[in-house]
Amino acid sequence: MSEIRSAAVLGLGLIGGSLARDLSSRGIAVQGWDSDPGTLDAAVRDGVVSPLDEERTGLGEAELVVLAAPVRATLGLLRGVADLVSAGAVVTDVGSTKRSVMNAAAETGLRDRFVGSHPLAGDHRSGWQASRAGLFEGARVFVTAEPGTDERKTKLVCGMWGHVGARPEPIDASEHDRLMAWVSHAPQALSSLLASALADAGLRHSALGTGGRSMTRLAGSSPTVWTDIFADNADEVAPALRSILARLGSLTAAIERGDLSEIRKELDRSRNWTAETA
Amino acid sequence: MSEIRSAAVLGLGLIGGSLARDLSSRGIAVQGWDSDPGTLDAAVRDGVVSPLDEERTGLGEAELVVLAAPVRATLGLLRGVADLVSAGAVVTDVGSTKRSVMNAAAETGLRDRFVGSHPLAGDHRSGWQASRAGLFEGARVFVTAEPGTDERKTKLVCGMWGHVGARPEPIDASEHDRLMAWVSHAPQALSSLLASALADAGLRHSALGTGGRSMTRLAGSSPTVWTDIFADNADEVAPALRSILARLGSLTAAIERGDLSEIRKELDRSRNWTAETA
Repeated sequence: MSEIRSAAVLGLGLIGGSLARDLSSRGIAVQGWDSDPGTLDAAVRDGVVSPLDEERTGLGEAELVVLAAPVRATLGLLRGVADLVSAGAVVTDVGSTKRSVMNAAAETGLRDRFVGSHPLAGDHRSGWQASRAGLFEGARVFVTAEPGTDERKTKLVCGMWGHVGARPEPIDASEHDRLMAWVSHAPQALSSLLASALADAGLRHSALGTGGRSMTRLAGSSPTVWTDIFADNADEVAPALRSILARLGSLTAAIERGDLSEIRKELDRSRNWTAETA
Repeated sequence: MSEIRSAAVLGLGLIGGSLARDLSSRGIAVQGWDSDPGTLDAAVRDGVVSPLDEERTGLGEAELVVLAAPVRATLGLLRGVADLVSAGAVVTDVGSTKRSVMNAAAETGLRDRFVGSHPLAGDHRSGWQASRAGLFEGARVFVTAEPGTDERKTKLVCGMWGHVGARPEPIDASEHDRLMAWVSHAPQALSSLLASALADAGLRHSALGTGGRSMTRLAGSSPTVWTDIFADNADEVAPALRSILARLGSLTAAIERGDLSEIRKELDRSRNWTAETA
């Protein structure tokens, strides 16, 4: 990281904003941009970034370009910046899905300069006002590179994440998207569905106990971010949800017919998994 | 509470054990019993209870009898103790469903002496080793009485809960069971299903991020306790799960056909509910 002195962060929400804060506080000159002018103003006012010029020619000077928008917007940004970044620069993103962005990078001629990133540091809050220094401290960051990527650029992206306290972990993009469908996207879908079912049943969030609250916490996450993720990773998320759907159907039927041993079997299985694989 | 000097607690797990600790530390003589002799030994060794005699004649001396077993076991205990408790005593339970225990109390001739309780203080841990003083501090406790119940007995049970720091809240048994199906039983079912689906997909609990962990925390709860609850409250739990099943089916189909506006609508609904009714 010692070699990087200038970066550009496009998208200044929870993730991009926090990364801009961390890079800036480490002496790196950060140019910032956001689709919302008010957000950019706030980031400039807080002394974290200088505004990227309207024609984005400043991108040519950035040694590191970070695309930190929701997944679909990132695909658009990638196409928008491809001709502006210098040949020596490295471009990365922070999206929760990785195949589509790797493909788009290859299509736009950035294959040699693009390394994907996915920091596991999001939570149910969002926006510049939720961003903070130190967000990535101790966080896992999945890093995806194509076989054709310059290895020094992969190292540079890993170094950048290490520099802000995160633990970079290389992974294949397809493997990443399959894993995330199960450990992140399906849990998000269930939390949202539970919340909307409770809404329909006329219940209030304040009626929940600690268990119900932990099950609906993710439902407060950004709808924009998650609509993109579900759509972008549909071929992995849908089968995961179909599998849960089948189990939910079986459990409900077992409850309806009072099949105690079937109910018990399902609960034993869940508890054992929790205890044994933690 | 000043008038109570003796109590009996049958079932010394997380809830019964914690209540026995709190009553004992407030100078009340507590007789204890558990279906597991090792648990009873531990509670006696820890100086919290004196063991209830094998014929349970000691129950005749207890001014307060607390049945703190899983729901189905509580129904059995209620029948087992009905002839042993004195006419002046009050009997309560701690179960997560209330209609069945109220009915059983009426059938066994305890209608005038039984007041149902449901402290919202359970968590995913269980057993005597998880019990602790102060568990009920600040906890809501639903209290259910029949129209025929002696009002002084209801007051006595509410006073007992207040004495250990909880907030007793009278509620109709049917209303209680419907509410719990939504805010507690359905969330538990989803957490367990997610965990067993992850198990089937070959994933480990350690692969989860913070969101996935909060969504599977309840899956570590006692299978014995929860099999009883699902079976006992089947007529309320099953419709709640059917409603979630339908939503999950719709969302999965929307993801499969790439229907962004439908996905977005569901996520907006969940987030708004979380924000507006908290």
